[in-house]
Amino acid sequence: MLQNIRVVLVNTSHPGNIGGAARAMKNMGLLRLVLVDPVDFPSGEAVARASGATDILDAAQVVGTLEEALVGCSLVLGTSARDRRIPWPLLDPRECGVASCEQAAQGGEVALVFGREYAGLTNEELQRCQFHVHIPSDPQFSSLNLAAAVQVLAYEVRMAWLAAQDRPTKVAKLETTAMLDMQPVTADELESFYAHLELSLVEIGFLDPAKPRHLMSRLRRLYGRSGISKLEMNILRGILTETVKAARGEHHRQGKSDV
Amino acid sequence: MLQNIRVVLVNTSHPGNIGGAARAMKNMGLLRLVLVDPVDFPSGEAVARASGATDILDAAQVVGTLEEALVGCSLVLGTSARDRRIPWPLLDPRECGVASCEQAAQGGEVALVFGREYAGLTNEELQRCQFHVHIPSDPQFSSLNLAAAVQVLAYEVRMAWLAAQDRPTKVAKLETTAMLDMQPVTADELESFYAHLELSLVEIGFLDPAKPRHLMSRLRRLYGRSGISKLEMNILRGILTETVKAARGEHHRQGKSDV
Repeated sequence: MLQNIRVVLVNTSHPGNIGGAARAMKNMGLLRLVLVDPVDFPSGEAVARASGATDILDAAQVVGTLEEALVGCSLVLGTSARDRRIPWPLLDPRECGVASCEQAAQGGEVALVFGREYAGLTNEELQRCQFHVHIPSDPQFSSLNLAAAVQVLAYEVRMAWLAAQDRPTKVAKLETTAMLDMQPVTADELESFYAHLELSLVEIGFLDPAKPRHLMSRLRRLYGRSGISKLEMNILRGILTETVKAARGEHHRQGKSDV
Repeated sequence: MLQNIRVVLVNTSHPGNIGGAARAMKNMGLLRLVLVDPVDFPSGEAVARASGATDILDAAQVVGTLEEALVGCSLVLGTSARDRRIPWPLLDPRECGVASCEQAAQGGEVALVFGREYAGLTNEELQRCQFHVHIPSDPQFSSLNLAAAVQVLAYEVRMAWLAAQDRPTKVAKLETTAMLDMQPVTADELESFYAHLELSLVEIGFLDPAKPRHLMSRLRRLYGRSGISKLEMNILRGILTETVKAARGEHHRQGKSDV
């Protein structure tokens, strides 16, 4: 699906930005780069900044006009600073990611079009785009580096793609031990822990049963919101057991941490 | 609010990346940059890549250790590649943006921590972070350029900030005592607590300094994600103090709970 989404860079001046854009694309799983009338390409500087994404540079299509770059596209999205004379349908990067993935999933071809480093896209070029995308930046300092802008849009495409596949955006590739580690305790295990904790606090003289104040409530609130795992609970219970032993003088200074 | 969010770059090799990060920050309205032991700074290359964000470079704080960079922070988020041995609470960039803005809106100080270009953050550095943030990238080509990673996280912070401003003011009309109760601890207070905890565990014989295993890491993970308040920290420190006394036989069974 992502192979249906191409990145189009128009009339880029600095080859380093082409390399940076290629890297950002590959990081996010986008592989098709089209360069419209680049000022300096191919270039060693592009290769250096691509940092391993040279396959994207090698396969990049170089064309003379935006029209050629957009052949076959059913959805064209152009990045734009705001305040154009004619108001145009405007998406934020997140909406752009979702729209691109939806179109690509339906088999359409999508182009994300980026303009020149200083001047952006011309009004004529912008009017070839169905939608404009504006990356929300500080109005006082609004011009992003070209590769950074590609990074933001490619990132949002990937987020939308992961969501569409029902894949987690956070990798939960946990091994079995890690799974056990993260298994949450049950409410009754938590209650046993609080009882053990209270007893231990009395034992070390920190909690006066005659004047308990809000101590246990506060500790319940703290541990309750922490989402303690079974393994962590074992550790905490182990600490309490040793604490009580130590307080009773049954202390035999030896390592007990078996975790 | 955004002024409560700092970007921390650890041991950056290439000054161009520092400049690129500064530009990405300023585009998104983040102004505070902290550099931990940068390899080459100040540098003309940083100024060139900053492309006008030189005020951020000029005001950047240069420190020797990550610890210094995190002074005063109540929320520390560290960028990480996947597959660490101990699973840690993980956020995607969007969740990171929301969490950062929420914390900053409550008056907390937030640090977004980025590691070295090739090696990232060390395990020790990652354990100083309450949460890890992973930018979902193609597993086949997962390493983002440093400035690009800063761009993605700064962008998500801005998106969350904009969304938060659109909302009707959620009045957090807390009373004074409740405010104090909920005031988050800072990273350095958390570190002192871990040191005290470790010492206490050795004292009661639960932790063998010769065979520490993953005990302290697991406890850091647990307490780090809990969002401990200053008042709760006082309680925990009080428990540790009494535990050590009890283990040393300085125990004089009397109520100490004054909370």
